[in-house]
Amino acid sequence: MAEIPAENLQRLCLGLLSIRGVRSDVALHVARGLVQASLRGVDSHGVRLLPHYLRALEAGRLNPDPTYGYERTTPSTGRLDGDHTFGHAAGAEGMGRAIEMARESGMGAVSVYNSSHFGAAAYFGLMAAEQDMVGLSLTHADSLMLTHGSKRAYFGTNPICFTAPCSGEGPFCLDMATTSVTWNKLLQVSGDGGPIPQGWGVDEDGKDTQDSQRIRALHPIGGYKGLGLAMMVDVLCGLMTGMPFGRDISTMYKGPIEEKRYLGHFFMAMRVDGFVPLEEFKGRMKQMMDHVRSEPARDSAVAVQVAGDPEKRAERERRQKGIPLSGVELEELRSLAGRYDVGFPELI
Amino acid sequence: MAEIPAENLQRLCLGLLSIRGVRSDVALHVARGLVQASLRGVDSHGVRLLPHYLRALEAGRLNPDPTYGYERTTPSTGRLDGDHTFGHAAGAEGMGRAIEMARESGMGAVSVYNSSHFGAAAYFGLMAAEQDMVGLSLTHADSLMLTHGSKRAYFGTNPICFTAPCSGEGPFCLDMATTSVTWNKLLQVSGDGGPIPQGWGVDEDGKDTQDSQRIRALHPIGGYKGLGLAMMVDVLCGLMTGMPFGRDISTMYKGPIEEKRYLGHFFMAMRVDGFVPLEEFKGRMKQMMDHVRSEPARDSAVAVQVAGDPEKRAERERRQKGIPLSGVELEELRSLAGRYDVGFPELI
Repeated sequence: MAEIPAENLQRLCLGLLSIRGVRSDVALHVARGLVQASLRGVDSHGVRLLPHYLRALEAGRLNPDPTYGYERTTPSTGRLDGDHTFGHAAGAEGMGRAIEMARESGMGAVSVYNSSHFGAAAYFGLMAAEQDMVGLSLTHADSLMLTHGSKRAYFGTNPICFTAPCSGEGPFCLDMATTSVTWNKLLQVSGDGGPIPQGWGVDEDGKDTQDSQRIRALHPIGGYKGLGLAMMVDVLCGLMTGMPFGRDISTMYKGPIEEKRYLGHFFMAMRVDGFVPLEEFKGRMKQMMDHVRSEPARDSAVAVQVAGDPEKRAERERRQKGIPLSGVELEELRSLAGRYDVGFPELI
Repeated sequence: MAEIPAENLQRLCLGLLSIRGVRSDVALHVARGLVQASLRGVDSHGVRLLPHYLRALEAGRLNPDPTYGYERTTPSTGRLDGDHTFGHAAGAEGMGRAIEMARESGMGAVSVYNSSHFGAAAYFGLMAAEQDMVGLSLTHADSLMLTHGSKRAYFGTNPICFTAPCSGEGPFCLDMATTSVTWNKLLQVSGDGGPIPQGWGVDEDGKDTQDSQRIRALHPIGGYKGLGLAMMVDVLCGLMTGMPFGRDISTMYKGPIEEKRYLGHFFMAMRVDGFVPLEEFKGRMKQMMDHVRSEPARDSAVAVQVAGDPEKRAERERRQKGIPLSGVELEELRSLAGRYDVGFPELI
């Protein structure tokens, strides 16, 4: 394992994307999004995805030079055609429009269509929080959540990210799959097909399994509740965008890599001062965070945390020490960097 | 057990509220909200709560003749002072304003403050869906959700209700507590202190218990995820309203019944045609519902359901047969009706 400074990884990502013809504004969002996820300890959605994205780019799934089509339909709603570019870039364009509308009208919501995998939902939610707004960032994903009462999956791991600005520290940021774990987390834990913890998912007969090779669907949180939340996400990301939904959503890894994914996302931003004075809100947000953290711990050795705390701690550590990459991940990046001559080994 | 026609129960509720001086527009929302919940099989939030509300009214907790203060702060946001009336009425006023703004600006969100218990969140979410809008209805509640990693509760059972219009049947309606069960459900199941199922909650030492008398906190769904969702709800309902939050929220049953509750709610409505053509959306919503229902069942005797299906079935049955009331519930209503001479026994 090696620990690489975030700046270097970001330059490496940018270099690799640029040399493959990805437009600079698009490349910047992809590089920032991947490195932010890695910094925040969300390795499943971090730089380890870059080789996959580059393959998808080369195969024609991803458009390096998109023409965004944007239609503002009302003072606070709009639709964005992502033109099949990287979801990171289409998503950031969408959230940017939502923030603009919120500034003007109090709230803004944008549905993004013709998009692709957007990485970690937090990247977009945090954009709103940085503007002192409350943010919501959603995407649907290919069918992987066990339908409560069924033997197989219909909805994806459909994440929900909610953010709010806070005094004295980074925003409150809840970013959660509606399944007990994400698929990328499973890939990361199982490595090349190793076992996974009990209770994560089921095989093709709908039976619980710890064999990552045989797993076909992941349990929703709270049974019918997690299923309902995933359905809400697909209503907003599949139906409100006109994109495919449920089992018709293309897969990230299994389908032909040259095929476009036709994914949809949904972003919302809301001005805090449309409701209460901003500084009062941020101060009370901080109080709420600190109250929860100071609740009596079940295990005295493990402090109570609020959503986003593990990511904040990881970011503090990794900004200092660098982002840890496994030997395999490092080798993959090295080989890419070597192939395209983008300044390796200076960078990693 | 007796089965009472919904119309009769609604007239009885209206009669009892009116005779106690509750203004007609307020009484109508309370009566409709309670009977709708009972019709939909959500007995925990139905007419069985009426005696409690009447006690709270008599004690001065609830204002029978509120002066709503409304401030529209931007084209799509506003704040409503509920003036301590029934949450059903303050909530309906708030959602009504959100719908008006959405009609004009695409989206509308209203935070409601100085309110009280609002019953089932679905009452407000369904208002938006009936206007062919997507709706979101949230309330915080007093501290009852076990904090993940802690021994006790900080947030309430903080429900999330999301609705969307659908062709050929009633709206999609997800209405879920972020705990595994609601407190009112627990009261209903345990009756006068009987045992409850394993895994619902913990005692004052944070240990699992099936003794409803000793239970102090209910498990969140999905561990830290349910905790995060409940926190999101309190950010919107406690912080965005300026109301107390977390452990500072007054209790429904334990505190002095004359004290006002200072609850907050949050409502959002969004025009579907701000994103896609309405009829296309509603048709695809219906497809999604039917797809999920036709997924292969784990147990061939139990069909797969989507959120809201049990409520739709209950409503069909109860519109025909009437709303079932236990002997105790019936006696309580009879005694109230007798005391105030509002047309019993013709009504029940």
